[in-house]
Amino acid sequence: MASNTISLSISSNVAASKNLNSLQSRRFIAPPTISFPAKSIPGELSFSSTSLSRSPVRAAASQLMNDQRSLASSPTTVDVDLGNRSYPIYIGAGLLDQSELLQRHVHGKRVLVVTNERVAPLYLDKTIDALTRGNPNVTVESVILPDGEKYKNMDTLMKVFDKAIESRLDRRCTFVALGGGVIGDMCGYAAASYLRGVNFIQIPTTVMAQVDSSVGGKTGINHRLGKNLIGAFYQPQCVLVDTDTLNTLPDREMASGLAEVIKYGLIRDAEFFEWQENNIEALLARDPAALAFAIKRSCENKADVVSQDEKESGLRATLNLGHTFGHAIETGFGYGEWLHGEAVAAGTVMAVDMSYRLGWIDESIVKRVNKILERAKLPTTPPESMTVSMFKSIMAVDKKVADGLLRLILLKGPLGNCVFTGDYDREALDATLRAFSKS
Amino acid sequence: MASNTISLSISSNVAASKNLNSLQSRRFIAPPTISFPAKSIPGELSFSSTSLSRSPVRAAASQLMNDQRSLASSPTTVDVDLGNRSYPIYIGAGLLDQSELLQRHVHGKRVLVVTNERVAPLYLDKTIDALTRGNPNVTVESVILPDGEKYKNMDTLMKVFDKAIESRLDRRCTFVALGGGVIGDMCGYAAASYLRGVNFIQIPTTVMAQVDSSVGGKTGINHRLGKNLIGAFYQPQCVLVDTDTLNTLPDREMASGLAEVIKYGLIRDAEFFEWQENNIEALLARDPAALAFAIKRSCENKADVVSQDEKESGLRATLNLGHTFGHAIETGFGYGEWLHGEAVAAGTVMAVDMSYRLGWIDESIVKRVNKILERAKLPTTPPESMTVSMFKSIMAVDKKVADGLLRLILLKGPLGNCVFTGDYDREALDATLRAFSKS
Repeated sequence: MASNTISLSISSNVAASKNLNSLQSRRFIAPPTISFPAKSIPGELSFSSTSLSRSPVRAAASQLMNDQRSLASSPTTVDVDLGNRSYPIYIGAGLLDQSELLQRHVHGKRVLVVTNERVAPLYLDKTIDALTRGNPNVTVESVILPDGEKYKNMDTLMKVFDKAIESRLDRRCTFVALGGGVIGDMCGYAAASYLRGVNFIQIPTTVMAQVDSSVGGKTGINHRLGKNLIGAFYQPQCVLVDTDTLNTLPDREMASGLAEVIKYGLIRDAEFFEWQENNIEALLARDPAALAFAIKRSCENKADVVSQDEKESGLRATLNLGHTFGHAIETGFGYGEWLHGEAVAAGTVMAVDMSYRLGWIDESIVKRVNKILERAKLPTTPPESMTVSMFKSIMAVDKKVADGLLRLILLKGPLGNCVFTGDYDREALDATLRAFSKS
Repeated sequence: MASNTISLSISSNVAASKNLNSLQSRRFIAPPTISFPAKSIPGELSFSSTSLSRSPVRAAASQLMNDQRSLASSPTTVDVDLGNRSYPIYIGAGLLDQSELLQRHVHGKRVLVVTNERVAPLYLDKTIDALTRGNPNVTVESVILPDGEKYKNMDTLMKVFDKAIESRLDRRCTFVALGGGVIGDMCGYAAASYLRGVNFIQIPTTVMAQVDSSVGGKTGINHRLGKNLIGAFYQPQCVLVDTDTLNTLPDREMASGLAEVIKYGLIRDAEFFEWQENNIEALLARDPAALAFAIKRSCENKADVVSQDEKESGLRATLNLGHTFGHAIETGFGYGEWLHGEAVAAGTVMAVDMSYRLGWIDESIVKRVNKILERAKLPTTPPESMTVSMFKSIMAVDKKVADGLLRLILLKGPLGNCVFTGDYDREALDATLRAFSKS
């Protein structure tokens, strides 16, 4: 079943590990330099990440040795290579103070900032200032949406269209998403659809959005029957990650974002996972250098995957480890009751449990995953109200179902290896669902 | 102002004209073989259509000499050349009886047919039969929408998503649009957005959809403040034009479609316009050979334009002759009160009037346009309730406004030449609005 199965493995890079070690002088503990060579699994389509250039990591590590001011004046850049849809991700402290960075990517004279009630009082004025400073020809409109996953729907999306049309924005305008993943997804889909497509910039203000949702062009809204079922692949002009915006992020949101950071380690970057095991408390304490490194390394992993598979024909699906179970939790428990990363965390534990039941991973990985998620103060079981039949009926409309077959991302082999497959024993799935929810 | 102005001209092709003459044996009158050489206008970006291959016309002309059964067994094909998004338009009588033609373009095992209350009783069973005959693995769902432009909105679109999600259609499904332009636009946008994009086939059943809206990948819905403001560029796998479906088309719909046929002649194909002047009654009487020829020649013109400018950065906008005024009529008078082609007809007269006021065309063209539209039983003035200020406020949100400047498609030079420009005397626009509507 080659077409249903994709295996992904990674071998660590000693040079990069040495650079990670240089972080020791701060609050970091150096990761062990254990290496997992790429391994091909018979009968599965295999992608190896050994050719992934780790050179940007070196830049990040040395940069971390400098102070925040130096970061502000010279952002780290991760390039997402997608031909004529390529774009940069700028990462650093104080980037919203660097107006030329943002203005470089604004097309036309009109901008619509899409944000929410929580972010607007904190960063809207600063963003408008960055867009207009020394650039009096640009006028900025804004639309402030209610905050939360439960508003990521067609009714809220229409408010963006209403504002754009009432403001008579034309095809040469630029939409700017200022906020977390919900704002980025909705603003991106609005930009993809308004006048059949206008320019678009992402300014993510949560860890979740900075390491995942704002990178890669997936945009969309939820349907009452499932998450992200309506949307578009639509790439931004640039992503601007000002790590200073994390200073106002609630603890629960911080932990939620770390679920995606942990995911990158599990599916393709064992060395990064080991670094996280040594630095999870520094991340939770918002150590700026630790955060900047984790964001950059996450974006590099995501950019590498997206560059190889923009429209998710295979490899990209591996970024959804834990998401099929997680989306079922979000949909079944009610959008917004749990944060996305909280649901992904519980979903990751379920995917890891199932991988273990299939005999695909060692018990030590199960334990390490549970432990790091607990340390990150993330849930490791779904809400009690979730039943086996709720999981099954919601997972049946997952986007990864193909011709009736539910494909899942599961771990297989040493840490840092995963498969995307519909070729698994159904009994293992049932056993996992029974173990984690009421029948 | 080169960036705001595009000029388009065409020179006729004597060989093609000779083939047109061969139609004389039927109800056609041969067009004169007058030639308009491509002319470049100083200060304007000029596109010449002299390189447009007219060879398919020869095939069509000889085919027209055969009977309907022969057409059914061997459809005429017009290719839309868009790299990896290229697709064929099949044109002929009885194509819905040729199941292999349709099945060749179905991906996956699940199909959703999107149609409306008027078309479903006529062609839904036939379409389902064509999709499933000899192909028992394919299952077909259908969603039947209310009929009319006034339902081309987000509420109706949601019914398509609801049906797709409730039916648990996955990414390997195919959406089929069965109906006129409204169905094609909505189904196409739904296909573009459902799970961020699924396969899509157009089966247009009106002249309007067959010659215009189903070709070229423009999809979308209306907003209460303007037409087609929300949508996507999304190309189908194929377009299947079964001319037999026109046998059930109401006269008013037939005339509406001819407004777009006439447009192709005016903007880029003088010879085709002259053919129409000689054959407009044959078209209204639904002479099958005349219809097949007009549809094919229209699709060739559209495919040629779209291949050069898929995303409407310039040339493609010329297909919107009369549409800026026309959209204002549709929006201001109420969606669905007038058919799209009726509004375009009145809008074309206004664009031609303005071109004449600017001194860009001879009075003879004004007269010929009015005459052919009257013979086609199309309106040549907007509804009486339209005022100058209604036109102005609605036109201000037109998609062709760029940085506040309204660009229009206007005729300039001999018949078959047009420009897309924001560089015109505002007085001429005001004079046209005053001449055609209350102040």
